[in-house]
Amino acid sequence: MATKHNIIVGQSGGPTSVINSSLAGVYKTAKERGYHKVYGMLHGVQGLLDEQYVDLSTQIHSDMDIELLKRTPSAFLGSCRYKLPDIHEAPDIYEKLFKILNKLDIEVFIYIGGNDSMDTIKKLSDYAILKGHDQKFLGVPKTIDNDLALTDHTPGFGSAAKYIAASTKEVIRDALGLSYNKENITVLEIMGRNAGWLTGATALAKTEECNGPDLIYLPELTFDMDKFLKKVQELVHKQKNVVIAVSEGIKLADGRYVCELSGGSEYVDAFGHKQLQGTAAYLAGFLGAKIGCKTRSIEFSTLQRSASHMASRTDINEAFMVGGAAVKAADEGDTGKMVVIDRVADDPYMSAAGIYDVHRIANNEKLVPREWVNKEGNYVTEEFIDYVKPLIQGDYPPFMVNGLPQHLVLKKGGKR
Amino acid sequence: MATKHNIIVGQSGGPTSVINSSLAGVYKTAKERGYHKVYGMLHGVQGLLDEQYVDLSTQIHSDMDIELLKRTPSAFLGSCRYKLPDIHEAPDIYEKLFKILNKLDIEVFIYIGGNDSMDTIKKLSDYAILKGHDQKFLGVPKTIDNDLALTDHTPGFGSAAKYIAASTKEVIRDALGLSYNKENITVLEIMGRNAGWLTGATALAKTEECNGPDLIYLPELTFDMDKFLKKVQELVHKQKNVVIAVSEGIKLADGRYVCELSGGSEYVDAFGHKQLQGTAAYLAGFLGAKIGCKTRSIEFSTLQRSASHMASRTDINEAFMVGGAAVKAADEGDTGKMVVIDRVADDPYMSAAGIYDVHRIANNEKLVPREWVNKEGNYVTEEFIDYVKPLIQGDYPPFMVNGLPQHLVLKKGGKR
Repeated sequence: MATKHNIIVGQSGGPTSVINSSLAGVYKTAKERGYHKVYGMLHGVQGLLDEQYVDLSTQIHSDMDIELLKRTPSAFLGSCRYKLPDIHEAPDIYEKLFKILNKLDIEVFIYIGGNDSMDTIKKLSDYAILKGHDQKFLGVPKTIDNDLALTDHTPGFGSAAKYIAASTKEVIRDALGLSYNKENITVLEIMGRNAGWLTGATALAKTEECNGPDLIYLPELTFDMDKFLKKVQELVHKQKNVVIAVSEGIKLADGRYVCELSGGSEYVDAFGHKQLQGTAAYLAGFLGAKIGCKTRSIEFSTLQRSASHMASRTDINEAFMVGGAAVKAADEGDTGKMVVIDRVADDPYMSAAGIYDVHRIANNEKLVPREWVNKEGNYVTEEFIDYVKPLIQGDYPPFMVNGLPQHLVLKKGGKR
Repeated sequence: MATKHNIIVGQSGGPTSVINSSLAGVYKTAKERGYHKVYGMLHGVQGLLDEQYVDLSTQIHSDMDIELLKRTPSAFLGSCRYKLPDIHEAPDIYEKLFKILNKLDIEVFIYIGGNDSMDTIKKLSDYAILKGHDQKFLGVPKTIDNDLALTDHTPGFGSAAKYIAASTKEVIRDALGLSYNKENITVLEIMGRNAGWLTGATALAKTEECNGPDLIYLPELTFDMDKFLKKVQELVHKQKNVVIAVSEGIKLADGRYVCELSGGSEYVDAFGHKQLQGTAAYLAGFLGAKIGCKTRSIEFSTLQRSASHMASRTDINEAFMVGGAAVKAADEGDTGKMVVIDRVADDPYMSAAGIYDVHRIANNEKLVPREWVNKEGNYVTEEFIDYVKPLIQGDYPPFMVNGLPQHLVLKKGGKR
């Protein structure tokens, strides 16, 4: 076996609770497989182009640090939203990048991210082959939205789903405790502009001691205000307390987002900016006006992707596994590939890392199939629940220091 | 010792993560002290007037159930927002209530709630003395807002503070991970219309690996948009990433709430309703327009008071203690009293239950003292932090069932 050189790893796109667990998986596996140095790009390829990187051995000093990293939300190395131009459009960028990689003696380049990151892997591996460079390029998936094709699910989705389901349970308790003989409607807004995986995960709140939300509206289906109002009126008449989960991305038949309705024809905030939040607030106002009862709206907002204190053990472990599997694949000669999660069995749930050629990854978003939503289009089916349930199992309790979850944080100039 | 009769307990006002721990404290202590039956009013005095109550022994079957109850957010018995009229205004209501109490053979009446609930205790104990009834009436404080006088702090505050501090840490990680060489401003909105205790608790996010929020604005001080803008411009120029915590109740010098500004002169939602949310959203829009950078707003909303999965052990235990202390006080002959928490020592932190005459409780809100806010009015002081820090210590991990926190839920007709 030839002497191994260095690895560089980066993180890209919207963060998740477990994207650092994949980073930990890359680091630990690289060290175990005898790679010399493991570098981290700071803020992905964008930072790397500015020669912003760090030797991870200056940051991770022990297995305890690895465990802390797995419990740290958001991108430890910093993220970026940078789409690499096509090779023929900007050959200078590619030359610059490979010059940096050569300077750092990089043998393996690993990128943890979503669709854009896999595009980066594809382009860099193509360029390397084209120019006869021998670096290997591997992708590790992540996204809370679960909208990547080919992988059974994405690392990050399970923890977001768990946080959403747990918070939905708590909000339902709150709603039921408050309402006595009076109508009371709560509208929850969940992330996922085009894919309803996270919104559907509110159905997991349906447990032996909780009925879960009453209605669930995914962005995959056209949202009909009249039908919606009729359904809610019916329910509120019957049971007084109604909890509704909607995706931020629900749209009317004419293609407008529901949140666009809030300014009437304006759809801008007080400063003239387009506002793409406020679906639940709009619907709560709408129902309040039409039904004449108390309504409220709750956005789970950024906490959905950063609440690592409520991470799923299954998700953390799988995120670690795919990070490690990318290193293994590179070590065994693969390049231009993305690691995926294959569901090996449902009962008991088992998963394994698989590998796919990035050229085969279509840029299609994986949406919730129509047959996993009920006929009326206002709830997910048992099949949906059976698919998600294994992904929220198990806990990864935070390391609590002085009453708060501790994180591993990049040490550069200041503390943050 | 004479044979003991029955106890009845109710919950009132906005729920907290630990109001059920007080209920558990009442129940357990009542049983230990030999009371015959422990009834729960469903939805407080309002429900009791409709003869809505439950024998708690049909709900709590074991010490395991007690533990589950301590981990259940919101009011297990259901809450109400009902202010008892003055005795001379509605003597029939009092007669009806005491008829029910006599029918149930009630010896002790315990009410867990905020200022209005203590007013209920005062009126009922006055009435009992006036009419020669021998029931005892005791109050147990709760509120996330920590705005009750006489008690060092209120049960419910510590857990809300812990959730807010932990979530602030996670959001700061998210913000830092995302921004590379670009200005990025996050505005957090925290509950507490008049009292800034919860907003100030975001300062607890300042730990060895986190700088905490950069600016904190409490409702106790007048909010100046120009000064605010200048300060944020200064910071964003220096450090690019800025995280700001504001109370939902911050007001301008002319008395208008900042959230009133969002509709320009309108201050109404699309349906003509006054909207008292949206302070952070307004400020994020304002800063985006003035500074021309990316901004976002996050409301912690209802989760602040219902996230029992992140409850403080200190808080849960104190909530339990004050519930038990109310039973003890009644058993020893007290009536017309509220249990309070006395801070016995700071280092190490120790607390004990004390007791106050409800007639002495002024209806004043306890606000953050001016000297616990810095001179500029944009951060809390070390004294503030030292006061809150002990209250968020220790965890009370939820009982996880199928990946989600389990709750104890009232069994009546249906599941919820």
